Amino acid sequence: MEPKANPTHHAVEIATMETESHPVAAPPPRSTLHKLKARLKETFFPDDPLRQFKNQPWKTKLQLGANYVFPILEWGPKYNLKLLKSDIVSGLTIASLAIPQGISYAKLANLPPIIGLYSSFVPPLIYAVLGSSRDLAVGPVSIASLIMGSMLRQQVSPTKDPILFLQLAFSSTFFAGLFQSSLGFLRLGFIIDFLSKATLIGFMAGAAVIVSLQQLKALLGITHFTKQMGIVPVMTSVFHNTNEWSWQTILMGFCFLVFLLFTRHISIRKPKLFWVSAGAPLLSVIISTLLVFAFKAQNHGISIIGKLPEGLNPPSWNMLRLHGTYLGLVMKTGLVTGIISLTEGIAVGRTFAALKNYQVDGNKEMIAIGVMNIVGSSTSCYITTGAFSRSAVNHNAGCKTAVSNIIMSVTVMVTLLLLMPLFKYTPNVVLGSIIVTAVIGLIDVPAAFQIWKIDKFDFVIMLCAFFGVLFISVQEGLAIAVGISIFKVLLQITRPKTVMLGNIPGTDIYRNLDQYKETVNVPGFLILGIEAPINFVNTTYLKERITRWIEDYESLSNNGNGKKKPTLRFVVLDLSAVSAIDTNGVAFFEDLRMAMEKKNLELVLVNPVGEVIEKLQRADDTKELAITDCLFLTVGEAVASLLPTIKNQNSNYV
Amino acid sequence: MEPKANPTHHAVEIATMETESHPVAAPPPRSTLHKLKARLKETFFPDDPLRQFKNQPWKTKLQLGANYVFPILEWGPKYNLKLLKSDIVSGLTIASLAIPQGISYAKLANLPPIIGLYSSFVPPLIYAVLGSSRDLAVGPVSIASLIMGSMLRQQVSPTKDPILFLQLAFSSTFFAGLFQSSLGFLRLGFIIDFLSKATLIGFMAGAAVIVSLQQLKALLGITHFTKQMGIVPVMTSVFHNTNEWSWQTILMGFCFLVFLLFTRHISIRKPKLFWVSAGAPLLSVIISTLLVFAFKAQNHGISIIGKLPEGLNPPSWNMLRLHGTYLGLVMKTGLVTGIISLTEGIAVGRTFAALKNYQVDGNKEMIAIGVMNIVGSSTSCYITTGAFSRSAVNHNAGCKTAVSNIIMSVTVMVTLLLLMPLFKYTPNVVLGSIIVTAVIGLIDVPAAFQIWKIDKFDFVIMLCAFFGVLFISVQEGLAIAVGISIFKVLLQITRPKTVMLGNIPGTDIYRNLDQYKETVNVPGFLILGIEAPINFVNTTYLKERITRWIEDYESLSNNGNGKKKPTLRFVVLDLSAVSAIDTNGVAFFEDLRMAMEKKNLELVLVNPVGEVIEKLQRADDTKELAITDCLFLTVGEAVASLLPTIKNQNSNYV
Repeated sequence: MEPKANPTHHAVEIATMETESHPVAAPPPRSTLHKLKARLKETFFPDDPLRQFKNQPWKTKLQLGANYVFPILEWGPKYNLKLLKSDIVSGLTIASLAIPQGISYAKLANLPPIIGLYSSFVPPLIYAVLGSSRDLAVGPVSIASLIMGSMLRQQVSPTKDPILFLQLAFSSTFFAGLFQSSLGFLRLGFIIDFLSKATLIGFMAGAAVIVSLQQLKALLGITHFTKQMGIVPVMTSVFHNTNEWSWQTILMGFCFLVFLLFTRHISIRKPKLFWVSAGAPLLSVIISTLLVFAFKAQNHGISIIGKLPEGLNPPSWNMLRLHGTYLGLVMKTGLVTGIISLTEGIAVGRTFAALKNYQVDGNKEMIAIGVMNIVGSSTSCYITTGAFSRSAVNHNAGCKTAVSNIIMSVTVMVTLLLLMPLFKYTPNVVLGSIIVTAVIGLIDVPAAFQIWKIDKFDFVIMLCAFFGVLFISVQEGLAIAVGISIFKVLLQITRPKTVMLGNIPGTDIYRNLDQYKETVNVPGFLILGIEAPINFVNTTYLKERITRWIEDYESLSNNGNGKKKPTLRFVVLDLSAVSAIDTNGVAFFEDLRMAMEKKNLELVLVNPVGEVIEKLQRADDTKELAITDCLFLTVGEAVASLLPTIKNQNSNYV
Repeated sequence: MEPKANPTHHAVEIATMETESHPVAAPPPRSTLHKLKARLKETFFPDDPLRQFKNQPWKTKLQLGANYVFPILEWGPKYNLKLLKSDIVSGLTIASLAIPQGISYAKLANLPPIIGLYSSFVPPLIYAVLGSSRDLAVGPVSIASLIMGSMLRQQVSPTKDPILFLQLAFSSTFFAGLFQSSLGFLRLGFIIDFLSKATLIGFMAGAAVIVSLQQLKALLGITHFTKQMGIVPVMTSVFHNTNEWSWQTILMGFCFLVFLLFTRHISIRKPKLFWVSAGAPLLSVIISTLLVFAFKAQNHGISIIGKLPEGLNPPSWNMLRLHGTYLGLVMKTGLVTGIISLTEGIAVGRTFAALKNYQVDGNKEMIAIGVMNIVGSSTSCYITTGAFSRSAVNHNAGCKTAVSNIIMSVTVMVTLLLLMPLFKYTPNVVLGSIIVTAVIGLIDVPAAFQIWKIDKFDFVIMLCAFFGVLFISVQEGLAIAVGISIFKVLLQITRPKTVMLGNIPGTDIYRNLDQYKETVNVPGFLILGIEAPINFVNTTYLKERITRWIEDYESLSNNGNGKKKPTLRFVVLDLSAVSAIDTNGVAFFEDLRMAMEKKNLELVLVNPVGEVIEKLQRADDTKELAITDCLFLTVGEAVASLLPTIKNQNSNYV
C-alpha cells in the first residue's frame, strides 16, 4: 500500500520489480480427455465407490465385490444372538404397525386390503439382502399409495374394473422399480437432490392434508364420495352428502382418533415410550373388531373390511401389462411414484445412518429399492419403500440390522397364513383413523417456521408446493415447486451479485464495503467482487451493472463537498468467486476492456481460479484478448502495484 | 502463522486476544421488503433507466420522458445537412440491397415477392422514430423468413390456399410484435440472453445451410421440390428429380453466384470497397432481367417472377386472424420468429453501438421492434428486424442516424410506385443466388474454431444446435441447444468445484495447491475452497466430496515414509466464493459440523459473504446451528489463531 518510487504506466512492469507481487499461475496443462474423465467422475462417482478395490489382490476384490452387491454378506457372518434379541423386539414392534398400516394404505391406493399385507411380506425380505441401511422399515407408504391410486383412477375405475386396475398397479410398480434401479445403475441418483427441503416439506404437508381429507369418507361413513383429490371437490362432496353421515361411525372414529393421537403425543413427549404409539394401531384394530363383532355394528351403519383371502402372495407376473393402451399411463405413474418413494426411502436411510454414524450409498440404495419393487410387482405387491414413521419406531425399538425387517416379514407371513379371517369385522373407520394419525406426522410446522426465518424465497417455494398439491394436484404441485426451485438457482446466476470492496485499514484485506463498516475506499480504484460464474445468461447484465457502478462512483466523486477526489483510474475485478466462465464470458472481458479504454480506465483482474485463467490465457494466445498484463494474485498486491501510478499522475496535474 | 504463546482450545478466545484477528461481520440489517425491492430492481431494471429523471424539475422530466419514448426528439433538433449527406449515401446503398433481398426473402417465406418490398417500406419509418440504434438497417431477414415459412407450411399450403397463408403470416407477425413489445414493457429482455454465443453460431450456420439447400430449387430449376426443410428430404428430392434440372438455369445461376461471391470476397478484404458487394445484387437483378428480356429466356426453361402489382402497401388489419382454428399455430409461429428476430436485431444494435461507443437500451429496442411489427402486420408487412448484413453495409457506408432508414424507405416507395413492371422478367435463379450469398456470411468458422479452443463443452452445444437444425428442425434444434446450455449451467452448480488450498510461503495468501506450485500444506489443517452457491442441488454431493477429501488427506498422512505427520485437526472451509446458501445449505453446515465432531475434527468457516453470514446467524439464533465460534475473516487469520492449539497438542503427545 505504500507509494513506491519509479512508477510506470503498465502493471506488469511494476509487478516484476521489487514490489512483492506474486504471478497468477494457470493449473498444470491437462488434456481434454483427462478433464472429461475427471468431470465425468465428479458427476457420476462423487463417492468414489471403487476406492476400496484399489491395490487389493484378485480374491479380496471378488470378496469385496460380493459384499458390495449383497451387504448381507458383510454383516451376516458377524451376526450374533445379542443382535437377534434386539432385532426380534423391533421386528415385532414394526409388524404390529405394518399390518394395520398395510391394509389402510392399500385402501388409500384403491387396491384390495390384502395387497397391503402382501407388500409387507416380500419386499422387506429382498431389502434385507440388498439394502445397506440398518434402520429402514420397508413396506407401503401413504404418499406413494395416494399418488398411484389417484393417477390410475384418472383413467380406470377401481370399482368397475378392479382386475384391470390391479394389473395397472402392478405394472406401475414394475416401471417404478425399473426406473429406480436404472437411476442407481446409471449413477443418476443426484436427480432426487432436485427436491429441496422446502419443496419436500410443503409437498408432504399438502399430501398429508389431501390424504386426511380422503379419510373423511371412512370417518363420516359417507358412501357416495367424490373420486377427485383436490380440497374443493372433497369438501363440496362432504357437505353435499350430510344425509349420509352416520353418527355411529362418527362416534367410533372420533374415539379411536383421539386415542391414537393421544398415544402419539405420549411417544413424542417421551421417546422411550415408543411402544405406546407403535402398539396403539393394532390395539385399536383388535378392540374395534371385537366391538363390531359383539354388537353386530355392521348392521348399524358401520362399514367393515369384509372377508379377506388367506394364503401367501400369489404370483402376478402374468398380470403385468407392459404394452398396449395403458402403457403411457403406467409408465408415467411408475415414474412419479418411483421418484417420490425413492426420495422418502433415501432420506429415511440417510437420516438414521447419520444418527448412528454409518454410511448409506445413495446409488446402491436405489438399486436395492428398485429390485425390491421389480420383484414385488411379480409377487402381487404394489409400490414399497422405507417408511418414515415405521423406520423411526424401528430405530427407537432398538433395531440393529435388517434382520428386524425379516422378523416383520415372518410375522406378516403368519398373519397371512392364519389370521386373515379375524380381519373380517374390522371397521373401515378405524383404518381411516390410523391413516390420519400416521400422516399428521408429515406436517412439520417447526421446520416451516425455521425456513421462514432463514430464507423467505424458500418459504414461498414451500407454500407453492403446499397449495399446488391442495388446489391443483399432487403431481403438478410437486412439479411447480421443483420448477420454481430451479428457477431460483438460475435467477441467482442470471443476476449475480457484484459488491464494492474496500480496504480494512492497516491490512491488505479487502472486503465488502457494505458488510464491513471499517473498510475504506482506495482513491482512484473501483474494486468490485463478482460472485457467480460468468456465462451467457449474465454477461449482458454484468456489463450494464459494472457500467452503473462506474457511473455511480464518478457522480459520487464529483458531488464531493468542494474537495475534488482523484478521478477513477483502475477498475479492479476480484474474480475469486467466479468459479467458471464460458465463451460468452471470455468475450465479456474483451468487451469490458474495450469499453474501459474508451473511458480512459484500466481493467485489472485479480485471482482468477484455475478454469478461468486457463480459458483467458487460451483466448489470449489466439489474440482475442489481451489481459495478461493486468493480472494480479490479490487485490492488495494490485493496489500496491498500481497506486504509485495515480499518485504520480495527481502530482503532475495538481 | 507464527506460533503464539498461551494457546487454548477454542478459536474465539484466541481471536479476542492480542492476535490480529478481525471479526466476521454481517451486513447491516435490512427489512425483507427492502431486500425484495432491491432484488426486483436488479432483476428488472439493472440499467436503471429512471436515473436521469432524478432531481429534475417537472418540465425537464416531461421533456426527458418524451425523448425517452421517441429518441428521434433527442437527435432530430440537432440534425444538420452534413449528417444528411452521409445518411443519403448510406440510405441509397442499403436500398440497393433491400430491394432484391426483400423480394428474395419473401419468396423464402413462401409469400408473394411484393410483400418483401412492402416490409422494407413501413417498418423502417416506424423504427426511425422509436429506435435508439443509429446503424440498424431494418427489413425482412433470412432466418426469420425461413422459420415463418416452414412453420406455417406445416398446416397450410401456400400454393393451394395463398390468401389464408398470407393471413396467417400477418397474424403471426402481429403476435411476434405483441410478444416483442411485451418483453420490453415487462422488462423481461434478459430472456434473449439465454441464447448463448455457441448456440447462436451453431444455429445460424445450420439455418444458413438449410436456406441454401432450399435455393437448390431455383438454382437447378426444379419444379417438383419437397416441402420439407431437413437436409435428408431436400437432397433426396434434388437427386430424384435430376430430369427436371435445366442447364440454362444452372449456367445462369452459376455465373451470378460466382459474381456475387467474388464481389463479397472483395468487400471482406477491403472494407472500404463495401459498395462493390452492396451494389452487386441490384446489378445482378438488372443484368439478368435484361438478359431474360432480350433472349426471351422464360421460354427456355428459366422461371421468372412474373407481374408484380404497383402501388403502396394496402391495409391488412382486416386480414388478421386473432381467433379460430389457426390461433395456436399463429401464436407459436409469432413466438418463435419473434424471439429469433429480436435476438438478431438486439445483437446487431449492440454490436454497432459498441463500435461507435453509444448506448442501446435493450428493453427499449424490444418495444421499438415490437411496435414496428404490430404496425407492419396491419400494413401488409411480414416480420422484420435489424438485418446483420445490411446493417454492416449501412455502417460501412457511413450512416450517421436513423435517417438512412428513411432514405431507404423512400427509395423503396419510389420503386413500389413506379418501377414494379421492370421486375416482371427477373429470373428466380438470380434471387436464389442473392440469398445464398447473403446467408453464407452467417457461417462463422473462425468463431467456431475459437469456441473449440476455449471451451469444449460450448463447442458440443454449438454442434448440437447445428446438427439439430440440419436433421431435426429449425425450432427443435434451437430448443435442444438452449436446453443443453441451461443444463450445463445447472451441472456446474450440481457438481461445484472444491479445491484444496495451501499457503504461499512467506505470505498469508492461500491458493489452490494444484494451480500454484509454490503453495504448501499447513500440517494439521485441511483447507478447502468451495466455488459455488450451496443449495439443495449440491449439498449431498458436497457432503460426500468433503468426506472424500478428509479420507484422502488422512490416508496420505498415514502412508508417509516413516515420519508420521501431525494428524488432521481442523477442516477450514473458505466460503469466499459461496455467493448464496438456502435452507438446505444451512442444514448442510450443521450436518457437516456433527459429522466432523464424530471424527474429532473441528470445522472452521472463513469469510462468508453477506447473505451467507446473515442466514448462518439467523440459524444460530434459533439454536439450529452453533458455528459463530469458528468464524474467521481470512484463512491466514484462522491458521494463525488455531496453529498454536496443534503445536501444543503435539508437544503434549510426543
